[in-house]
Amino acid sequence: MTTRVIRCKAAVAWEPKKPLSIEDVDVAPPKAHEVRIKVIATGMCHTDWEYLYQAGKATRLRPFPLVLGHEGAGIVESVGPGVTKFSPGDKVIPLFLPQCGECERCLSPKTNQCRKNWANTQVGVMADGTSRISYMGQQVYQCLGVGSFSQYTVVSDISLAKISREAPLDKVCLLGCGVSTGYGAAVNACKVEKGSSCAVFGLGAVGLAAVMGCRAAEAKRIIAVDVNPDKFEKAQMFGATDCVNPKDHSRPIQEVLLEMTGGGVDYALECVGSPAVMTAALESTTDGWGTCVIAGWTETETMSVVVEKILMGRNLKGTYFGDWKSVESVPKLVDDYMNNKLKLDEFITHNLPLDQINRAFEYMKSGESIRTVISLW
Amino acid sequence: MTTRVIRCKAAVAWEPKKPLSIEDVDVAPPKAHEVRIKVIATGMCHTDWEYLYQAGKATRLRPFPLVLGHEGAGIVESVGPGVTKFSPGDKVIPLFLPQCGECERCLSPKTNQCRKNWANTQVGVMADGTSRISYMGQQVYQCLGVGSFSQYTVVSDISLAKISREAPLDKVCLLGCGVSTGYGAAVNACKVEKGSSCAVFGLGAVGLAAVMGCRAAEAKRIIAVDVNPDKFEKAQMFGATDCVNPKDHSRPIQEVLLEMTGGGVDYALECVGSPAVMTAALESTTDGWGTCVIAGWTETETMSVVVEKILMGRNLKGTYFGDWKSVESVPKLVDDYMNNKLKLDEFITHNLPLDQINRAFEYMKSGESIRTVISLW
Repeated sequence: MTTRVIRCKAAVAWEPKKPLSIEDVDVAPPKAHEVRIKVIATGMCHTDWEYLYQAGKATRLRPFPLVLGHEGAGIVESVGPGVTKFSPGDKVIPLFLPQCGECERCLSPKTNQCRKNWANTQVGVMADGTSRISYMGQQVYQCLGVGSFSQYTVVSDISLAKISREAPLDKVCLLGCGVSTGYGAAVNACKVEKGSSCAVFGLGAVGLAAVMGCRAAEAKRIIAVDVNPDKFEKAQMFGATDCVNPKDHSRPIQEVLLEMTGGGVDYALECVGSPAVMTAALESTTDGWGTCVIAGWTETETMSVVVEKILMGRNLKGTYFGDWKSVESVPKLVDDYMNNKLKLDEFITHNLPLDQINRAFEYMKSGESIRTVISLW
Repeated sequence: MTTRVIRCKAAVAWEPKKPLSIEDVDVAPPKAHEVRIKVIATGMCHTDWEYLYQAGKATRLRPFPLVLGHEGAGIVESVGPGVTKFSPGDKVIPLFLPQCGECERCLSPKTNQCRKNWANTQVGVMADGTSRISYMGQQVYQCLGVGSFSQYTVVSDISLAKISREAPLDKVCLLGCGVSTGYGAAVNACKVEKGSSCAVFGLGAVGLAAVMGCRAAEAKRIIAVDVNPDKFEKAQMFGATDCVNPKDHSRPIQEVLLEMTGGGVDYALECVGSPAVMTAALESTTDGWGTCVIAGWTETETMSVVVEKILMGRNLKGTYFGDWKSVESVPKLVDDYMNNKLKLDEFITHNLPLDQINRAFEYMKSGESIRTVISLW
């Protein structure tokens, strides 16, 4: 057990819509059932951008100042009282979705949505209502209970996965959010079947991972949809059989897909977070049994559903973290990567040091990056 | 094989929004793979009212003149060429949803939505594009390929179920639409589980049958919701454990249900056909795994879905004819009724002869009837 505060570098969001500032922050020692980790690498997720630049619009406004980042990987530095499953030196991936293993939800096969500490992590604090990061004595909130844009952070021991000692942290960090979400959307939420037809809307990391999941499930046809044709080469590499740009068509994209497939796809995956795209995705599925899974994120918006589309046998469902039970699944996904069953390197288009982190937002908004991995050290 | 035209009484809808007229119509002999049946009794479904009084609003405008009715039961009078499964004298229930038994959909366990003859029956004609009912030589369309508000009608042999010789036709006619739809919505579409919690919105025949289905599936809690408290006694008889009138609350009904259940029901069934109620039903389910099944009918309207409700693990799906594969399931449902496993008598609040059929619409709109059964003879 340690009682030492660690002073280190972190990218702090002082207020919405302003670039991050690299600051010297203080990271308190872990309290009971908490673990302090040295963050080695972190992806930047579109949701990080939304929390900063869309705060109060597509996402709810969260308290500032804030350390963003929820797609990291690191090494355990110290553990608080009561922690039994982690030791200093363990390689770990912090989890924005916990798996306490004891609640009704964790015991149910129907969901991965453990709600332990939920209300707290949503506003950036730990179970006791405070964060472990501060700047000159001022509390700095931790994005989704993680806050991986800091060289050190503290997370709950139910929000942490212990992974292979051999895992390259600057790659497997992507399993903390985007890749797991998209891949699981296909294999868990859709349960894509061999020989089926799929459409994936949006070819960021979540969408490309969904394409990869459709391919792993041996879908016969995988139609990748994006308004940016620069994404198509990568989509094909991940398994897309067709690529469609809605801008190339004067008709609504759902009509194009219905025609291409003779009545609609079996599975549609929305990986954008746009209500209009969600409606198009639902309407791209076949009647009778078409399933549309929403993996894209929006917290405040409403989508429009033509009731008859539902009555004619379609299903609409969502996924959160790809329906993976987080603590038990992430180590297996890491192993799948180590065994070449899952691609990760191909998602990484850029690498940046922490002090250039704001460039990652620029790459994201220009559409030139899939994932930028930030090195914290 | 018969070539004789039968002249008989039918209730004809000459134009939208006008009462039905009892007319002497001519019913042509059955063509290949068709069966002419003597209709003994028919229920009146809310959709019949909609086709007449809401035509072009909640439902698409269908061609007139029209014989409504799609919830009938009768006796085979004669069969056309190629019909092998029916003989004169057979007791039968005509089906607005066919089961051809040969198409991809019929061979799939995922759906009951056979589309054979679909486009034709939707506009009231048989496979050859014409109806078998006429008035003074003018074609009269048959509602959904049935048209049971006529003493005789002709249906396709894939749209007909042969049932027990002992079945009372003035009761089992209800299995042609409403009761099968609501009961199946619970047991097939929701797959309600023992010990689960359910909410049923709308306590007409479909909703009460859904309550009955939840009870059959041994749900622990069945909350019946209607703005007409006169329906509550019957709902309790069918198995409701709680009855809630949204008018008794100043808050939205979903908030009331979330509070009553400590977070939402496992299954919500919308049996009204109102987009606003659909949204309320979806939002009454628990996050993590709540399933909302829409059984109420609307053809033209759009519902609003707060995306986050879906992302938090809810499912939205529809059902058509309660997910029953029609030809094979309706005889079994009749047997279940004969063996006291399924209630039907309790849905019937009124009986009327054909010449008073317009009173059935009045009973429906005033809310005093659940089902009125029309005797054709």
